Amino acid sequence: MPVNLNLAPGIAIDAIELGSIAAGIKSDGSSDLLLIHLPANSTCAGVFTKNIFCAAPVSVAKAHLHKNKGAVRALLINSGNANAGTGQPGIDMAQAHCQYVADALHISPEQVLPYSTGVIGQLLPDETMKAGIKKAALSMGADWAAAARSILTTDTEPKLTSRQVTIDGDLITITGMAKGAGMIQPNMATMLSYLFTDASIDNVSLQLALEQAVSTSFNAITVDSDTSTNDACMLVATGGKLGGDKLAGKKESLDETHKQWPEFMSALSAVALDLAQAIVRDAEGATKFITVKVVGGKDTAQCKQVAYAIANSPLVKTAMFASDANVGRLLMAIGKTEIDELDANAIRVSIGDVCAFEHGGIAANYTEEQGAAIMQEAEISIHVELGSGAAEATVYTSDLSHDYVSINADYRS
Amino acid sequence: MPVNLNLAPGIAIDAIELGSIAAGIKSDGSSDLLLIHLPANSTCAGVFTKNIFCAAPVSVAKAHLHKNKGAVRALLINSGNANAGTGQPGIDMAQAHCQYVADALHISPEQVLPYSTGVIGQLLPDETMKAGIKKAALSMGADWAAAARSILTTDTEPKLTSRQVTIDGDLITITGMAKGAGMIQPNMATMLSYLFTDASIDNVSLQLALEQAVSTSFNAITVDSDTSTNDACMLVATGGKLGGDKLAGKKESLDETHKQWPEFMSALSAVALDLAQAIVRDAEGATKFITVKVVGGKDTAQCKQVAYAIANSPLVKTAMFASDANVGRLLMAIGKTEIDELDANAIRVSIGDVCAFEHGGIAANYTEEQGAAIMQEAEISIHVELGSGAAEATVYTSDLSHDYVSINADYRS
Repeated sequence: MPVNLNLAPGIAIDAIELGSIAAGIKSDGSSDLLLIHLPANSTCAGVFTKNIFCAAPVSVAKAHLHKNKGAVRALLINSGNANAGTGQPGIDMAQAHCQYVADALHISPEQVLPYSTGVIGQLLPDETMKAGIKKAALSMGADWAAAARSILTTDTEPKLTSRQVTIDGDLITITGMAKGAGMIQPNMATMLSYLFTDASIDNVSLQLALEQAVSTSFNAITVDSDTSTNDACMLVATGGKLGGDKLAGKKESLDETHKQWPEFMSALSAVALDLAQAIVRDAEGATKFITVKVVGGKDTAQCKQVAYAIANSPLVKTAMFASDANVGRLLMAIGKTEIDELDANAIRVSIGDVCAFEHGGIAANYTEEQGAAIMQEAEISIHVELGSGAAEATVYTSDLSHDYVSINADYRS
Repeated sequence: MPVNLNLAPGIAIDAIELGSIAAGIKSDGSSDLLLIHLPANSTCAGVFTKNIFCAAPVSVAKAHLHKNKGAVRALLINSGNANAGTGQPGIDMAQAHCQYVADALHISPEQVLPYSTGVIGQLLPDETMKAGIKKAALSMGADWAAAARSILTTDTEPKLTSRQVTIDGDLITITGMAKGAGMIQPNMATMLSYLFTDASIDNVSLQLALEQAVSTSFNAITVDSDTSTNDACMLVATGGKLGGDKLAGKKESLDETHKQWPEFMSALSAVALDLAQAIVRDAEGATKFITVKVVGGKDTAQCKQVAYAIANSPLVKTAMFASDANVGRLLMAIGKTEIDELDANAIRVSIGDVCAFEHGGIAANYTEEQGAAIMQEAEISIHVELGSGAAEATVYTSDLSHDYVSINADYRS
């Protein structure tokens, strides 16, 4: 059961067609292949995993995106098999599948970006994929909910949401979907997330917008400290609004010099953060949603290092599962960063809004009962003041439960 | 149940007296206080946790060890309470307890080193400790097995072992004890380990010997990536042998210029490695003992980084628990190090003695059945060839089981 996973509804983006089907890659017969057809003149930006063993589709998608300077016409996504650790045969297959999509949609194969998620180290079932692509291309429509469901692996719920913002009088929509669940400590990307907007944005501004939105959302979550081989987060601008009307002389396309750029970024960041948090809320075995905010650090990197040390500590995460206000384990996790500049006597640690540790010892007014009451909640916030600067960072994580072990001892990823 | 925990028997070191009792710090009434009285002229070396929130007794032990240049007469160890995160009151209490030991044994308080392990963030029960010290001082003897048992927390078995080596015709004994179980990724030390030898060794050579032995033993294990606030590993030389006979003109004390120093180091390293591995074999919830050997790296640090990335990955550890030969998760863990110099196509990964991955893909002759057969064993070795240099490192770890979650969701550490 996800922890308070209540996303605002997803709103269809005009002119984008989606076809999701059960191709037979997953053995349970559920939907596992999604083909997304983008309108002409769409621009696309992307960030990808930094894992050395990045999957074949990641290599192909990066190459195609770069070669076309973001002028992309189709995204092909399969779940159930990651096509990772598969060497040159995996690359060849990803390229062949792009060709299949190109043939079906009458576009160039280099305008197609492939993505895979699921079991690592096995070749994709080639004929199943090819048959699936043909079938998906024949069933294109606007069923965004079905699309969001088709990219899932161990997720229990689809993750689809939207925000709208009025810019130059045009109602701009940003809609995103994501999948996650495990092997989650994205680095410049998450497992898989696709964000779309009907605004007109050039590919340079689009990449800037995506990287900025990702830094405080998908790059601020962790389930298990493990970084996937297949992480990718894409942002597509169809150009249906704003720049789309430029020929009529009314509007300009959106970029970072536009006075309403901050409003667009705010809406984009909200969609990204909601989806990133949704991944944590639906993390493998999660019973708690934990926000770790670290303030007063020298720089953002230092704050993130401390926040991740807490968020990734198995002992902190099992204490969270047990609703145990274990201040000692929080101190241990902060301390194991071995950051020279930190002074144990300057650090304050609060659980919820109750200060539990300061001046090098347990806070004078802190009681176990106060901590225990906060830990009973499904949403827990940990607040750390480092007392060594003005930077801050927030990281979101889940607890480590029996179900996490069960899911990962049983499931092949 | 520990995984194949079969240590060579512990041999008493002459002239060392030990008193272990149930002082009442632990609520279950088991033994929780150990006082070790060392003979005059003993030398002592130590390595301690680098955790920023190092416990009060760690601060006091380091100060006393440094001030006395290793001339230590007593070690005071309690389990059940770590005296960590306790600020100045914790320091004051550790010093007061040293004074209590000094009064009982007629030595100086600065010749006493205190150690604590257990719950973090609570003050020690002062009166219980003082009464326990008095009682222990009245029950000194040579019961090494009882001593090894009294320092345990969530360990299921005591860890005590010995090696002997003949140097200059004298039979030298090295005996060590350790406790571990959880919050184990020592950095220059482990939870608590005490090594003793009857050789005569000056404090500078002793420190050198300890640091060398620790680097491939206690600093090569991990249970959960969490570094304790209370880690300490001590090495005491009583001088009963070799230098102890120097007045008779027969022998010289041992140092790194002695032609048999390598033999001494070999025996010392064997005791340290056996104890370090014993900690992993008896790790919280362990059902597997896993050796991760990484060869062909640029330097030892790079090899250790890759080995720890595998050994600490929750997804690798749950796969081990499930006896799942999940090559993909091994690749993910190696890859998430993001070491620029590594070439995914040059890396070979073997499970046991079977090559599972090479040339960027699953090895041609590898079958799931081969991997599955190896994973059924309780002892599993993972071998990674990086193909980028001549360095190597080995790290030992346990799996991530339901019992790890249960133990740490129930137990307060």
